[in-house]
Amino acid sequence: MPDRIDINCDMGESFGVYKLGRDQEVMDYISSANIACGWHAGDPMVMEQTVKLAKEKGVAVGAHPGYPDLMGFGRRRMDLTPVEIENYLIYQMGALYAFAKAYGLPLQHVKAHGSLGNVAFVDLEVSKAIARSAARFSQEVIFIALAGSVMVQAAKEVGVRFVEEIYADRVYNPDGTLQSRKIAGSVIHDPEEAARQALTMVRDGYVIAHEGTKVRVKPDTICVHGDTPSAIAILQKIREELQKASIEVKPMGQ
Amino acid sequence: MPDRIDINCDMGESFGVYKLGRDQEVMDYISSANIACGWHAGDPMVMEQTVKLAKEKGVAVGAHPGYPDLMGFGRRRMDLTPVEIENYLIYQMGALYAFAKAYGLPLQHVKAHGSLGNVAFVDLEVSKAIARSAARFSQEVIFIALAGSVMVQAAKEVGVRFVEEIYADRVYNPDGTLQSRKIAGSVIHDPEEAARQALTMVRDGYVIAHEGTKVRVKPDTICVHGDTPSAIAILQKIREELQKASIEVKPMGQ
Amino acid sequence: MPDRIDINCDMGESFGVYKLGRDQEVMDYISSANIACGWHAGDPMVMEQTVKLAKEKGVAVGAHPGYPDLMGFGRRRMDLTPVEIENYLIYQMGALYAFAKAYGLPLQHVKAHGSLGNVAFVDLEVSKAIARSAARFSQEVIFIALAGSVMVQAAKEVGVRFVEEIYADRVYNPDGTLQSRKIAGSVIHDPEEAARQALTMVRDGYVIAHEGTKVRVKPDTICVHGDTPSAIAILQKIREELQKASIEVKPMGQ
Amino acid sequence: MPDRIDINCDMGESFGVYKLGRDQEVMDYISSANIACGWHAGDPMVMEQTVKLAKEKGVAVGAHPGYPDLMGFGRRRMDLTPVEIENYLIYQMGALYAFAKAYGLPLQHVKAHGSLGNVAFVDLEVSKAIARSAARFSQEVIFIALAGSVMVQAAKEVGVRFVEEIYADRVYNPDGTLQSRKIAGSVIHDPEEAARQALTMVRDGYVIAHEGTKVRVKPDTICVHGDTPSAIAILQKIREELQKASIEVKPMGQ
Repeated sequence: MPDRIDINCDMGESFGVYKLGRDQEVMDYISSANIACGWHAGDPMVMEQTVKLAKEKGVAVGAHPGYPDLMGFGRRRMDLTPVEIENYLIYQMGALYAFAKAYGLPLQHVKAHGSLGNVAFVDLEVSKAIARSAARFSQEVIFIALAGSVMVQAAKEVGVRFVEEIYADRVYNPDGTLQSRKIAGSVIHDPEEAARQALTMVRDGYVIAHEGTKVRVKPDTICVHGDTPSAIAILQKIREELQKASIEVKPMGQ
Repeated sequence: MPDRIDINCDMGESFGVYKLGRDQEVMDYISSANIACGWHAGDPMVMEQTVKLAKEKGVAVGAHPGYPDLMGFGRRRMDLTPVEIENYLIYQMGALYAFAKAYGLPLQHVKAHGSLGNVAFVDLEVSKAIARSAARFSQEVIFIALAGSVMVQAAKEVGVRFVEEIYADRVYNPDGTLQSRKIAGSVIHDPEEAARQALTMVRDGYVIAHEGTKVRVKPDTICVHGDTPSAIAILQKIREELQKASIEVKPMGQ
Repeated sequence: MPDRIDINCDMGESFGVYKLGRDQEVMDYISSANIACGWHAGDPMVMEQTVKLAKEKGVAVGAHPGYPDLMGFGRRRMDLTPVEIENYLIYQMGALYAFAKAYGLPLQHVKAHGSLGNVAFVDLEVSKAIARSAARFSQEVIFIALAGSVMVQAAKEVGVRFVEEIYADRVYNPDGTLQSRKIAGSVIHDPEEAARQALTMVRDGYVIAHEGTKVRVKPDTICVHGDTPSAIAILQKIREELQKASIEVKPMGQ
Repeated sequence: MPDRIDINCDMGESFGVYKLGRDQEVMDYISSANIACGWHAGDPMVMEQTVKLAKEKGVAVGAHPGYPDLMGFGRRRMDLTPVEIENYLIYQMGALYAFAKAYGLPLQHVKAHGSLGNVAFVDLEVSKAIARSAARFSQEVIFIALAGSVMVQAAKEVGVRFVEEIYADRVYNPDGTLQSRKIAGSVIHDPEEAARQALTMVRDGYVIAHEGTKVRVKPDTICVHGDTPSAIAILQKIREELQKASIEVKPMGQ
């Protein structure tokens, strides 16, 4: 049984006068912040404030790069070449790194946002492009791979530092992939249920897929969506359960 | 008499399918490249190729950040606050740094582009915001200050590493500032004349202003515009004159 | 005494996933909507929805063009040439016109947003560029000019259809200009006071400036800011006072 | 045998300081200009100049809308919903319409650019979204449909005015679709050959597909790419052949 786990959440998704998310509150419950880099969300003012807030709260920072599609919040697939993905992500990682450095923090990790992330779950070439962007930028940066997806294979082939990630609030398929959001009931809104799933995955190393089969996992980090109404309740409940199980919440890079 | 000088030029100003400048040729004559960072010009593909080219040619790389105004090529003044300028430049420096790092190069310097640069020549607060962005990002990055302008004062007040820059192809005022481009004859197109002015400034430490008075300067780097028709001829002539005077051309950071 | 007046308000300022303003509520109290055109705020999805909502509520639609500065919400001055302003506004007016036409509505008016509007208050050349953009697009489009400002002169010189606008919630200077927002107390937050000022201007043709002098005005439209906390209360109170005075609220173009 | 045909070409693809294409030359040989609308290429200054040039040359103008992807020149597929496509195109059509109106020209047609166009060739839902955008904007605007593609079906289902388009410089498949550019030899660079294919299609109503079979077509407009090295030569040769065959070149809308 592991004695520690990381909790990551998307942060810094405001833009200009537009406010999004409850970063101030959420930051109290997480150990790693995935910070938007100005392409699908975020801007330099927001990035600076988010890194500052993370530092104050003792939260590690990572880049959360996405497609160049602010109007679509990075949620619409774009057919980019692997080289385009690689360079677009090096750019965005560098931009966030600069704010981290200004605050004396390392760039702990990189996690692809939105549709780019969804494509990476199932497309090895895209996953490898993301992994290569991390590896080319720095051997220290951790690539977040969805547990059991081709992202793990991509990380190994590229030779980048990586961790495996699970979702507290998503229903799993028997093959370890996430059930499509298009299927009713694939998102778990009940804090108790989400916390129980997270704990089982972390402590016991498995998740019960929607058909009742046990799927083995060995997670390093739990992702919680910060923009759902029950986000804070889910985070509180997860922290509570982890504490009872004597599992500490710590940044993945420590 | 100095035995060395740097020559800097703006590079990497293409964008997507749009090509601009003659980077391949110009890179043979310069020692420092000011590379656009995707806001007023450039994109991650162009940045990657430009850094790669610079490395092949032994040219040091720096960030050339500008206003968020691609449509205006950063040439239209925007009333940004000092904090906005600071954060916008930290962002752009980080983005370029990432490509430099991927190629094993340091980010040598930062030089403000277009209208932002012109404002910095005369506005101490703007100059200090740019200097602070460099200082916050890294104590290694060199801030390029126009010789004799408030940028030198800004660099000293902020406490950032800096160099003084002169223009080979611009006519000077008796107070050491550049004569406005709006005045006919303020840009020197003749390679011989530009090279002579550059050499006098570097070797002899002065420039003859338009009224005939001698203005003292102690330059570290010569700026040449890469987008003028005579750019290559001017660069060749300057290199020739410097060689005759046994003054080596070397990156400012070495 | 006039028997009718228009009330205009900025609408459609959301962008992508980002929501801004309370268009649904505000639309019940106004007769003319100034709709953002995608440059400083708004996007085609938002524009389509806002025009549709305006039609349902019987509100006339106009273009609310701004600087190409989404990150700054069009609130930062940009030094554009008159020709740039003219073409940028023709573009934005056309874009909004297309949605109005799709819903069978005319493009009633054009009103410059944010910093562009503020510059127009005092800069005749900028005012004329905006007026020309309206005149070139259509002789039917109404140019909204701040009462007593150079915008009225610009409208007359260019020969464009125009109306004069007053602010319910801003303190006036003795010369008829608006007191700078930088001066404490220059924005009126009290609904009673704002409604009283609006009524006096509309019914009695004057406003009491901050020094107590009467300034004569002959307004065609009242602007109310939709994004202040008391916006709905101010709008309700103004409607109430106008009704008591038997002054109807109707779109300026009818 | 028809006594007239239209020739269309993409125009106005410059952006800010970036120049692209040879509009001045090409405009002498065409009857309809597809003008970029600022999303994948073009800006209001370029649009204004291109419309002006078209008017001077007696060329009809149409909108050439594309994906919101300036960095990729609209050549990368984006997974937009039909409603997004519809609204994005209404926006772009309106923007170009405004410049046409300012010069007293009608908006003759709309033709989707780049990847959006390629998707429309084979995707009925996307084709219908484009057709609907035209129909919603105006019953006068002509929707350009690739001859023999689902775009013709889309035009009929939506009930929009449309014309059928052929390519002078592309090799055809036996089913009437264009051979993929990925197959070597699918683009015809020889002016004689391109002109011969165009003439056979216009005069005789068929094209010889790559396997030798005759495919029947009944074209209203010929598309020629303006950005290929042989563009002017191809255009000259086509005009020459059409003249010999007594087929006049006239805008599709006349």
